[in-house]
Amino acid sequence: MIAELARPEIDDLLRAQVVARLGCHAGGETYVVPVFYAYDGEALYVATREGRKVDMLRENPAVVAEVDEYDDDTGSWRSAIVRGRYEELGGADAERGLALLREAFARRRPGREPRRPPPGQAPPVVFRVVVDEATGRAVRR
Amino acid sequence: MIAELARPEIDDLLRAQVVARLGCHAGGETYVVPVFYAYDGEALYVATREGRKVDMLRENPAVVAEVDEYDDDTGSWRSAIVRGRYEELGGADAERGLALLREAFARRRPGREPRRPPPGQAPPVVFRVVVDEATGRAVRR
Repeated sequence: MIAELARPEIDDLLRAQVVARLGCHAGGETYVVPVFYAYDGEALYVATREGRKVDMLRENPAVVAEVDEYDDDTGSWRSAIVRGRYEELGGADAERGLALLREAFARRRPGREPRRPPPGQAPPVVFRVVVDEATGRAVRR
Repeated sequence: MIAELARPEIDDLLRAQVVARLGCHAGGETYVVPVFYAYDGEALYVATREGRKVDMLRENPAVVAEVDEYDDDTGSWRSAIVRGRYEELGGADAERGLALLREAFARRRPGREPRRPPPGQAPPVVFRVVVDEATGRAVRR
């Protein structure tokens, strides 16, 4: 039986995972793309490069973010769908986003350092998706 | 370094995984939702229930399907984005779709039987997403 998740359970899932699939729509086209994220209880933080995803999000900042989790042994799963708005970050806000991402990365892969970008590479585009609405579902077996 | 995947590598990923995130857009709204699927080399097959996702896909059959895979130990990942069209199946085509899903499920969770739907439940909506275009990326570490 599928159960609806309450907000604290959705928050728990968003903190436990590090990969979200962002859905965006611009120029008559829908796009779904996986990103690494960090969650601080209010927004998902993402660092990426200039490209199609960023172009589309700048054109239409309405974002859907999907996060899910499966247990192959039991068949249990939980998933969340978040609606929010693309907000590009600069200065101290971008630095805080990058720090949150480093923390999330360290929790997920203890003892491993995130890779530094190669020298000379353009700085990342840092943005957040502020959670306006969140729904979640789960099946426990 | 991010590498582009050739179609055989994308096919390999689509066959290895069983969860896709479908992106659709209708009534001014974008939606991303996880589904279990089976892949036969040409299309992704899905069985679901009547609901928002099916309503939206009937209204606008343009679908994006995203599949990804992460290795927490190495940090390697690969992902594919498929563009296709929603095609609802009936009769023998729907039966074949359900058989492909049972096979995919058995490969993924050997020795376990898929759960039978409770008696009296409406039959599932079976559909496929025929792959019109597929792109993939990978980082190997």
